[in-house]
Amino acid sequence: MTKPVALNNLPVKNTVAGHYGRFVHGERSTLAFWEISEGAISPMHQHPHEQITYVAAGIFEMEIDGVKYELLQHDTLVIPPNALHGGRAVKDCKLIDSFCPVREDYR
Amino acid sequence: MTKPVALNNLPVKNTVAGHYGRFVHGERSTLAFWEISEGAISPMHQHPHEQITYVAAGIFEMEIDGVKYELLQHDTLVIPPNALHGGRAVKDCKLIDSFCPVREDYR
Repeated sequence: MTKPVALNNLPVKNTVAGHYGRFVHGERSTLAFWEISEGAISPMHQHPHEQITYVAAGIFEMEIDGVKYELLQHDTLVIPPNALHGGRAVKDCKLIDSFCPVREDYR
Repeated sequence: MTKPVALNNLPVKNTVAGHYGRFVHGERSTLAFWEISEGAISPMHQHPHEQITYVAAGIFEMEIDGVKYELLQHDTLVIPPNALHGGRAVKDCKLIDSFCPVREDYR
């Protein structure tokens, strides 16, 4: 995928209730664009991928390794590999997550 | 860096004329937030990192391996490791780039 792709032309995956994701995959990394509905819950989970989250819009309560943070618009957070994390959209959210390596499960 | 950091609290690096970047680094990857002034030029360059570019705002003309693309708002583009690339801000831009591995040169 070395040609540009408009976000709206990427298929949307409804991975978890209220979570709508679009994904751009390289060979080594994935950039994910989420729209998450107010009140939707991301169940606690972990993965070997490093994740960096950016809140493009909204408010997201993120719990990581037992600590809760209220992420506001334009907040960033590094989620280390295998860290247990999850959360809840306090308001409708747009999140951008980078993952390294590729999220093969989102292909 | 496992605590949230607001984008505005990250230091700004003026890496190239008209290019203002903020960087969030993990252990394996970097998420970069650029503001690029209209007319500013990113000289052709290459790096071993995979890059995924997202145009949050503006228009950016990207040349990659000899082919030019006009990237519009919400366009995405995977730049493979070592691909020769560069460009020009046709309009004021906000770009988000994920890099894997970490851009140590931006620390």
